[in-house]
Amino acid sequence: MELRKDPITRSWVVVGKEEPAFPAGLCPLCPGTQSQSKTLLALPPDGPWQVRVIPHLDPLYRIEGQPGRSAEGIYDRMELVGAHEVIVETPDHTRTLAQMSGEEIERVLLAYALRIDDLKRDPRFKYIAVFKNSGSLAGEEWTHSHSQVAATTFVPRRVLYELRSAQQWFRQRERCVFCDIVSQEQRQGKRIVDEQGAFLAFCPYAARVPYETWVMGVPHNSRFEIPDPMADRADLAELLGRVLRRLVRVAPAYHLVVHTSPNEYQKKGELHEYWRTISDDYHWHIEILPITAITSRSYGLKETYFNALAPETAAKTLRGLDAI
Amino acid sequence: MELRKDPITRSWVVVGKEEPAFPAGLCPLCPGTQSQSKTLLALPPDGPWQVRVIPHLDPLYRIEGQPGRSAEGIYDRMELVGAHEVIVETPDHTRTLAQMSGEEIERVLLAYALRIDDLKRDPRFKYIAVFKNSGSLAGEEWTHSHSQVAATTFVPRRVLYELRSAQQWFRQRERCVFCDIVSQEQRQGKRIVDEQGAFLAFCPYAARVPYETWVMGVPHNSRFEIPDPMADRADLAELLGRVLRRLVRVAPAYHLVVHTSPNEYQKKGELHEYWRTISDDYHWHIEILPITAITSRSYGLKETYFNALAPETAAKTLRGLDAI
Repeated sequence: MELRKDPITRSWVVVGKEEPAFPAGLCPLCPGTQSQSKTLLALPPDGPWQVRVIPHLDPLYRIEGQPGRSAEGIYDRMELVGAHEVIVETPDHTRTLAQMSGEEIERVLLAYALRIDDLKRDPRFKYIAVFKNSGSLAGEEWTHSHSQVAATTFVPRRVLYELRSAQQWFRQRERCVFCDIVSQEQRQGKRIVDEQGAFLAFCPYAARVPYETWVMGVPHNSRFEIPDPMADRADLAELLGRVLRRLVRVAPAYHLVVHTSPNEYQKKGELHEYWRTISDDYHWHIEILPITAITSRSYGLKETYFNALAPETAAKTLRGLDAI
Repeated sequence: MELRKDPITRSWVVVGKEEPAFPAGLCPLCPGTQSQSKTLLALPPDGPWQVRVIPHLDPLYRIEGQPGRSAEGIYDRMELVGAHEVIVETPDHTRTLAQMSGEEIERVLLAYALRIDDLKRDPRFKYIAVFKNSGSLAGEEWTHSHSQVAATTFVPRRVLYELRSAQQWFRQRERCVFCDIVSQEQRQGKRIVDEQGAFLAFCPYAARVPYETWVMGVPHNSRFEIPDPMADRADLAELLGRVLRRLVRVAPAYHLVVHTSPNEYQKKGELHEYWRTISDDYHWHIEILPITAITSRSYGLKETYFNALAPETAAKTLRGLDAI
């Protein structure tokens, strides 16, 4: 079990980790069945938990040790060091994120933010991914509503490409590409799904799958985990709930991925103090990729995406759906 | 229906193309049922065809017109101009590529090469992709054994990343990264599946899926379509056949993708003569990605690959299988 780097695309591949075999029976995420699990975070802090974060029951990464980057001839490898956690979004086994109230979703988003912020204090971790696989078609591991956190010693491929593009855009124009996208979407309107307060939900121009939707804050902010003074997370929670209630009407499953800036803590001198760098050229956003019955033509493992549904049509359909 | 560029990852997405609905009934690839189809290539040139190339029955791209790259605000778009063809690999409806003789496979590979070479003469096309989706899990459109050709006005994302990496590697070391890979695989031996003549088949070090196998020529050559004087295509055909016969024993479906250099014809002065540039930093290869029952953990749409099976183990298993 180790991480190996593809010398061609420079992405890292986890090699040799067997699929977990979770015993059937009691749901391990329900209250009372997790007595052996360590609680990493409980919200609210007092009284019975509404959101609870625990180590993953069959983690992909081990928390101890150093990545130990080394060579095998021309190839690169690392140990599987990282954090892998489960965010149990509700004590109720049958309640889904789309069914939750704004207040409940806000608590889940707060748990996302607190775990990202905490794990970013560990300088071994280059990136903290928070994601949710909802529905069996999306590969969810338990039906009890949950998200996952993965802190890795590398920046995942797609995020790396985003960062590179955003940097180049900024160098050429001194503007954030995501701010430019938000501004055009607001001006054109035709791909907007919904909005609330300082937050916007829209189907991106080159949507990879039918009904792909991004939810993001309008004011520039690279870090999801640090709330913008101009943006109230309660608005984001309300908006995300309405978006999900629309999406579950058109898709049986979805991936939700939080994109935030990579670890910006930098070692400062010999005392190993850490401080944050500010990033002008990145902008957090949430990508939701529904899995619909409208399949797409398979072509060389997605080397080109084929999306049958135009995002303008998708946005129009989603706008027309009840979000109650 | 158009091509749209993702401003973040700079990949192109085909938007708005509906799934084709092919009528049930007679197989359109069988001899006699293709009377309306134009034949783009038949092999052998005389007598009944053994391999036949026709335009795709519901093409993704139109052959006429110019890409007409234009802006929509900050976004980029193009017309769906390109070529989309079907290579019918055999007149026999039930015969698969893995079952074919070396001579039959050599004829299929010759058709690949002739179509790439012909389409590269059109300077509108930046890349010619040849690929095969075998098995319903791989999204095959007809069960009659066939491959597809797609000539596009852009270089597909994965190929672009390959080209960039290979260029950087060459600049730093004045060596081809693929030649370095071949050399290390030959030295270590543990990921080699099979070899014949000047050709090698191996499981790559950072295999993305179980039993991923690459087949390539050992002498440096960037263009699949131009045979190397030191490499006999009959050897490649024999080797590919043996590799496929092993893979179909461990996987019900596979994607096969030919990676060759992008269109290197360049306009030469005002007379619009075209000539080829030589590429020291790219090396053609065939990537075969089996779809096995060993699924991989879904994580944010493959932003990180998780492969349960180490390529050394995969290669060992494949070497141990009969290839008859």
